[in-house]
Amino acid sequence: MMNVPLTGIVPPMITPMRGRDEIDVPGLERLVEHVLAGGVSGLFLLGTTGEGPSLSYRLRRELIERVCRQVGGRVPVLVGITDTAFVEALGLARFAADTGAQAVVAAPPYYLPGGQPELREYLHHLVAELPLPLFLYNMPALTKVPFDLETVRIAMDEPRIVGLKDSSGDMAYFHGAADLLSHRPDWSLLIGPEERLLDAVLAGGHGGVSGGANLFPALYVGLFNACSAGDAARAFQLHAQVLRVGSSLYRIGRHPSAVIKGIKCALACLGICDDFMAEPFHRFRAGERALVEQRLAALQAEIEGLRL
Amino acid sequence: MMNVPLTGIVPPMITPMRGRDEIDVPGLERLVEHVLAGGVSGLFLLGTTGEGPSLSYRLRRELIERVCRQVGGRVPVLVGITDTAFVEALGLARFAADTGAQAVVAAPPYYLPGGQPELREYLHHLVAELPLPLFLYNMPALTKVPFDLETVRIAMDEPRIVGLKDSSGDMAYFHGAADLLSHRPDWSLLIGPEERLLDAVLAGGHGGVSGGANLFPALYVGLFNACSAGDAARAFQLHAQVLRVGSSLYRIGRHPSAVIKGIKCALACLGICDDFMAEPFHRFRAGERALVEQRLAALQAEIEGLRL
Amino acid sequence: MMNVPLTGIVPPMITPMRGRDEIDVPGLERLVEHVLAGGVSGLFLLGTTGEGPSLSYRLRRELIERVCRQVGGRVPVLVGITDTAFVEALGLARFAADTGAQAVVAAPPYYLPGGQPELREYLHHLVAELPLPLFLYNMPALTKVPFDLETVRIAMDEPRIVGLKDSSGDMAYFHGAADLLSHRPDWSLLIGPEERLLDAVLAGGHGGVSGGANLFPALYVGLFNACSAGDAARAFQLHAQVLRVGSSLYRIGRHPSAVIKGIKCALACLGICDDFMAEPFHRFRAGERALVEQRLAALQAEIEGLRL
Amino acid sequence: MMNVPLTGIVPPMITPMRGRDEIDVPGLERLVEHVLAGGVSGLFLLGTTGEGPSLSYRLRRELIERVCRQVGGRVPVLVGITDTAFVEALGLARFAADTGAQAVVAAPPYYLPGGQPELREYLHHLVAELPLPLFLYNMPALTKVPFDLETVRIAMDEPRIVGLKDSSGDMAYFHGAADLLSHRPDWSLLIGPEERLLDAVLAGGHGGVSGGANLFPALYVGLFNACSAGDAARAFQLHAQVLRVGSSLYRIGRHPSAVIKGIKCALACLGICDDFMAEPFHRFRAGERALVEQRLAALQAEIEGLRL
Repeated sequence: MMNVPLTGIVPPMITPMRGRDEIDVPGLERLVEHVLAGGVSGLFLLGTTGEGPSLSYRLRRELIERVCRQVGGRVPVLVGITDTAFVEALGLARFAADTGAQAVVAAPPYYLPGGQPELREYLHHLVAELPLPLFLYNMPALTKVPFDLETVRIAMDEPRIVGLKDSSGDMAYFHGAADLLSHRPDWSLLIGPEERLLDAVLAGGHGGVSGGANLFPALYVGLFNACSAGDAARAFQLHAQVLRVGSSLYRIGRHPSAVIKGIKCALACLGICDDFMAEPFHRFRAGERALVEQRLAALQAEIEGLRL
Repeated sequence: MMNVPLTGIVPPMITPMRGRDEIDVPGLERLVEHVLAGGVSGLFLLGTTGEGPSLSYRLRRELIERVCRQVGGRVPVLVGITDTAFVEALGLARFAADTGAQAVVAAPPYYLPGGQPELREYLHHLVAELPLPLFLYNMPALTKVPFDLETVRIAMDEPRIVGLKDSSGDMAYFHGAADLLSHRPDWSLLIGPEERLLDAVLAGGHGGVSGGANLFPALYVGLFNACSAGDAARAFQLHAQVLRVGSSLYRIGRHPSAVIKGIKCALACLGICDDFMAEPFHRFRAGERALVEQRLAALQAEIEGLRL
Repeated sequence: MMNVPLTGIVPPMITPMRGRDEIDVPGLERLVEHVLAGGVSGLFLLGTTGEGPSLSYRLRRELIERVCRQVGGRVPVLVGITDTAFVEALGLARFAADTGAQAVVAAPPYYLPGGQPELREYLHHLVAELPLPLFLYNMPALTKVPFDLETVRIAMDEPRIVGLKDSSGDMAYFHGAADLLSHRPDWSLLIGPEERLLDAVLAGGHGGVSGGANLFPALYVGLFNACSAGDAARAFQLHAQVLRVGSSLYRIGRHPSAVIKGIKCALACLGICDDFMAEPFHRFRAGERALVEQRLAALQAEIEGLRL
Repeated sequence: MMNVPLTGIVPPMITPMRGRDEIDVPGLERLVEHVLAGGVSGLFLLGTTGEGPSLSYRLRRELIERVCRQVGGRVPVLVGITDTAFVEALGLARFAADTGAQAVVAAPPYYLPGGQPELREYLHHLVAELPLPLFLYNMPALTKVPFDLETVRIAMDEPRIVGLKDSSGDMAYFHGAADLLSHRPDWSLLIGPEERLLDAVLAGGHGGVSGGANLFPALYVGLFNACSAGDAARAFQLHAQVLRVGSSLYRIGRHPSAVIKGIKCALACLGICDDFMAEPFHRFRAGERALVEQRLAALQAEIEGLRL
């Protein structure tokens, strides 16, 4: 079971790999324990940070199975099923349910963009067949279309849709989504971009799907807790640290893949898992890795000083 | 075998369906014969018009198998393998090769957009494993990134990459691609948007992947032949007719799916196949269908007058 | 007076300059005569090709005055008044009226984009104060917002709004605009992109605002006349030539300014006027100019063979 | 004289108007004193919030003159000269210098977008003629092109270019700009979006050009001071209040003009100045104004409690 609304930090877990279609199994096991030890409230598999759409369905299934088994109910596991093909999304959702996941997460089909009426009907049809509760995933930069606020409001009429993860970076949208919370006391509103986690909690959000929590889970959990508790000085201090993670690790490399590459490379430097990436992306080369190592060391020293 | 360069009209075949994961088998058989009877030079399966990314992999495989068997080598069959997951693209390509297809077609992975250096490396890795020749598919409106002209030029150094289908609608790009043809006499340069077919042939292109050729294959073949033969008066006449197909059938409905809906609906009106569409899209309702029927009748009368 | 609807070719005249705020007066005089000699139906000053927004208001006024005086009523002069400031647009329109221009042309204010209801109100307020008839100028790539088709339809209720120049390049939009012509028999529908001139006339448009008509006015006039007269073979031949102008002269340089630079440079090579450009753009350098010269010579030979 | 780097809060002043080309003179006088009383470090006239591009040049000059006279050197006055026409930008800069302004601010020319090499040359030419120091204004959503970081670095070689106001909302860009500060100890790095003011100061920025400082100048000054002084609890408290200003006042209305409309309407409710807006925008109607009044009262009560 999953408490509702889901609150706190739910890391979008990166997918440790050793090759094009091979999970780094020991790395995955270490990563799951590393993240759980930080006090996270759940795990989100196969999102953007998890390279979900780049992975074979076979590997996706293996990942879901391994993680659900290892987590063993300690926290809820959410599984990304975003897909251009309805049938494949449904297949993955059924597998997730059978394996013990607690919820699924779906962004709009992202090849030929649908209009909002088409998206509303899509959600209606999808949820009718889903064996698990559904979180909406708003990610217009990658799906071309948002779930607009009117669509979110209509989705709230479906009891099996239980929350929204907003990765748009548009705080006017997030505030609009927060305005809708009165319709559904069990609805979870989570923020994607971690540098807005503090703002999101101030706005009434329930937590964050923070990529950096793969690396430093206790930092993000600590920030969420300080915000929730109204501990202003601590919240400010941890927010500043979260910004430093982003400004030092996510800006190496120039393409949208730089954030994932930075996290995977840092996890490799920490000895947690391999930094192999699915095509068309590739791990950082030696020069970039040296930079990651150096910046990671500085971050670790800072974070140690925070006594999380 | 496939003659090189591939010239003429290669329709991006729509996928006749009876349900969410069910091919309209008799409709598919009628459609293939209808299109072949029009004199096309090949069939392109599982492109944008074919709703490729919206279909289950099972249905995609069934479609490839049925069409390859039915065509029986009368024309080459090209199979769209565009995918966000390298492993799935490769799996489909291997299936296509085993089933007797002649080539595969791939656009850039379309979820998290790669930079051009990443796309070049992707093509290099992909072609190394492909069992069939590869056509590039430039479709930046849907994949977020183009194959830029420098990437196309570099791709020409791979003998197994044999052509480019350009659906950008940017004729400066198309002319730039035509300038590159001297590097590879066997390279095929095909245009997507059918209202630019005449211009594309004038620019040195080898033909078109024209959606309307699902409906009126002889019209598009006739236009291509008239352009190639320098029959100016005939080319003008058929080009004007192609524009009328688009202005009457593709503008019913307001979303990017309107073109596919219009073609599928018109094929249903002709009794060729069902107009079921994959999620998140749906067939036209009664009002729109009545409009299609009426306009289709007018087009048929005009096209009959052309004595193709 | 201006015949309605305005039909034929109305070149978007480039602005010959000798310096940052100085007209090339003899060049301007030669250019006006050169273009009029080609049989054009009007002149459009201070559009995108005319670098209107980049010029001082003083120079814009001088240009309007000189051209109106020189043309002396031989054809209508249309003046671009597109401006982010309503008061400045109005001031320019009044000057144009006083100087003898026949109409003004306005795109949406292009800094902070307005919604369609705001644009409709804007047009209503603008036309109430304008001393001349108004053409709408649809150019969403540069103004961020279109005049959508519903806005065009509503604008047709204002008798002082007399036409639409569509530079969107979106032929579905153009066909939609053509569908509206039954509401206003006096309305002019003109196309911007010259490679679509033939298609636009086939779709019921009244002519084109073709940049290349600065260079080869008789070619574009000939194409328009052939299309209008239904002379298919001639239309095809001249359309092919228009495509060759674009593919050889407009693709030197890489930025959106390449088209204007190519036209100005070619006019300089012809000895018609200076190719100075307003900031932040600059004339082609020697290498690019050599390429223009060479391609221009080829085009001239081809066009001479057409016996226009 | 202006201290360098310019630090603190520099409100982008709205332009109080009574009609299409008429300043609300008493309102302007009240607004200037209201803002100065809050402890701001400067005034920025004729930016986006000031509706600069929508105003006649006559009104812009009147505004500059009135404000410079009234301020009388108490703080520096920065004047927006962003223009599509180089000559007009220069004319405004000269007027600003003659009237006693301390600096000018320019975004890229925003009609036909230039490439970065063109923008670099533009800045080089502009600064050579400017009588005042220049701040760059990065605002790609409205100018279509950014000043990219390489262009900023090159601009730092011009001693007369003295700072950057970044309104992109892209914190990776802002961090990149902060990395460049070591090249120029006198360079000011200011942030536009006020909800990122705290993050900007944490990243090494010198302050903010915060629209809300028209209304509540002491709030933004207080936030800046708390951040600078490392007073974490106070910074957190004031940041939360700044977010509430935005979430309550800037989301009434649906278009990009909603922020300016909200600020102007609130100032009118406070009795400071008229809320007339330049075309194509219009003041809020009664229903929206009632909402502003109600939310403003709540904000005032909260802010009073902060004892700024």
